[in-house]
Amino acid sequence: MADKVLIYSRFPKTMMARFAERFEMLDTGGKPVREVFSADELGGIRAMLTGGGTPLGAEAMDLFPNLGAIVCYGTGYDGVDLKAAAARDIAVGHSPGANAASVADIAMTLMLATTRRILVADQYVRSGDWAASKPSPMMRPQAGMPGRRIGVYGMGEIGRKIAARCAAFESEVGYFSRSKYDLAYQYFPTLEALADWCSVLMIAVRAGTETQHVVNADILGRLGADGYVVNISRGSVIDEKALVAALTDKTIAGAGLDVFEQEPHTPDALTALPNVVFAPHIGGHTLDSHVAMQNCVLANLTAFFAGKPLPYAVKSA
Amino acid sequence: MADKVLIYSRFPKTMMARFAERFEMLDTGGKPVREVFSADELGGIRAMLTGGGTPLGAEAMDLFPNLGAIVCYGTGYDGVDLKAAAARDIAVGHSPGANAASVADIAMTLMLATTRRILVADQYVRSGDWAASKPSPMMRPQAGMPGRRIGVYGMGEIGRKIAARCAAFESEVGYFSRSKYDLAYQYFPTLEALADWCSVLMIAVRAGTETQHVVNADILGRLGADGYVVNISRGSVIDEKALVAALTDKTIAGAGLDVFEQEPHTPDALTALPNVVFAPHIGGHTLDSHVAMQNCVLANLTAFFAGKPLPYAVKSA
Repeated sequence: MADKVLIYSRFPKTMMARFAERFEMLDTGGKPVREVFSADELGGIRAMLTGGGTPLGAEAMDLFPNLGAIVCYGTGYDGVDLKAAAARDIAVGHSPGANAASVADIAMTLMLATTRRILVADQYVRSGDWAASKPSPMMRPQAGMPGRRIGVYGMGEIGRKIAARCAAFESEVGYFSRSKYDLAYQYFPTLEALADWCSVLMIAVRAGTETQHVVNADILGRLGADGYVVNISRGSVIDEKALVAALTDKTIAGAGLDVFEQEPHTPDALTALPNVVFAPHIGGHTLDSHVAMQNCVLANLTAFFAGKPLPYAVKSA
Repeated sequence: MADKVLIYSRFPKTMMARFAERFEMLDTGGKPVREVFSADELGGIRAMLTGGGTPLGAEAMDLFPNLGAIVCYGTGYDGVDLKAAAARDIAVGHSPGANAASVADIAMTLMLATTRRILVADQYVRSGDWAASKPSPMMRPQAGMPGRRIGVYGMGEIGRKIAARCAAFESEVGYFSRSKYDLAYQYFPTLEALADWCSVLMIAVRAGTETQHVVNADILGRLGADGYVVNISRGSVIDEKALVAALTDKTIAGAGLDVFEQEPHTPDALTALPNVVFAPHIGGHTLDSHVAMQNCVLANLTAFFAGKPLPYAVKSA
């Protein structure tokens, strides 16, 4: 009989196909697990697959008395209470770096689309306004990439890939992260100093309680009227209310957002703004990235059921 | 009295401000020159400023018996009949490379926006479809940049900057141009071979009669159903009717277009397509790019009126 794996978050069926070949994938279809499974069945679940952003605390873990592994699909694991898992001897795995290029690429896409105003440009052509020579203040020339100061917040695998891409655009790259690395980019000791220096702030930091709302009204104000913020990390890193205010009153010039505080919900005041480019959390959403993430999930589950340590375990902070 | 320079194409006044400080800029406001100027006045015009794509042949040149210099604002000069100019001893200048980074960046913007479907993504969030978990076939994962084969057609300054940027995205880069260069990218001896190999064709070739409609139905067919074409050169390089057909019947997956055959006019059949990202010829349209192009124009005009050769002269083919 195949080993059972509970699907804890909601995933498209196509993303589960490779796992279903090897494991019995139990899906609640979005219903509470207690409604779907008997106490006996819950006791038979030793591993679960979840999205790293889905809240998963002590109470939820205690529904599964024999749970031994929580495997996150993707890089993030901010929804998982690591201390609660450790206290219960539950291993936590993820897919480190598997989607780094894909996420870095959506950051670049959002930055370029926002700073070059591609939504306005596309609409200007489609609407016939260009053909009619209608003036378009939004289409006035803006600063380009050469010499632009890009501030990368967080220098993990995604931050490094963003930095390397920006350098190829002849931009200046600076960064702030907890540690200073041996890298060719300028290091700033605080997020405030980075925001004072840069014109585009790229948020690539790992989300968690200590990064909650660190990009606040003060940081946005430091970016200034020509400043942009791009977030591909987690919505929790930005104070979304402060961001709406800064975009509305032109404290900053624009934003590119793949992530939001209450996904998939976005405030109407935010989605009404013309100076933002939105994406529905598709950073890691490429074919190659999914294959790489699935490889990590399969390796983690296979090792767990063989009684071995997870090859892609979360390193507890 | 300041030297007179005729503004032959239509330009926004803000773009002419620096020239007006040094020269007397004569603007017809879009009217035919013979309606605005007397024969005497036409004879007093020794230099003109034009957009490189604006048709300027022998007949137009002969309206100005003392014309000595045609200065193009930007890199292109495909509208200027170089043989007719040479036969009349008229020097032709342009702004080589001044907008190369800006144009390469719009190529990257269009490629990323198209392949990552950023228009669809933005609309999916803004419309509330994401919040309503509405299925979106257009949002299915696509191939990402790592390992993607990017074919660059034309290896001038813009092509090289596109290639360098693509390499930073971990893509494979190949190119076709008249000459093979000492570059780290794979060379293809024909456009057909490049189109067979690549999944994104980036058109960065200098436009002219010999490149008219070279990207035709056959080349588009070779890109295939997962293929994209991005054009930041001139609209004349693509057979626009064949492109509309290829995009409509899904012979190719999508396109990113900054240039068109009959600017600013675009066929309705083209602008109705969801798998294209449009821009209104804004490739060179950044603040830094304009300053660099204006520097070339000023240097060319200053040298001409001082009786010296143009420092940024077009090299006749």
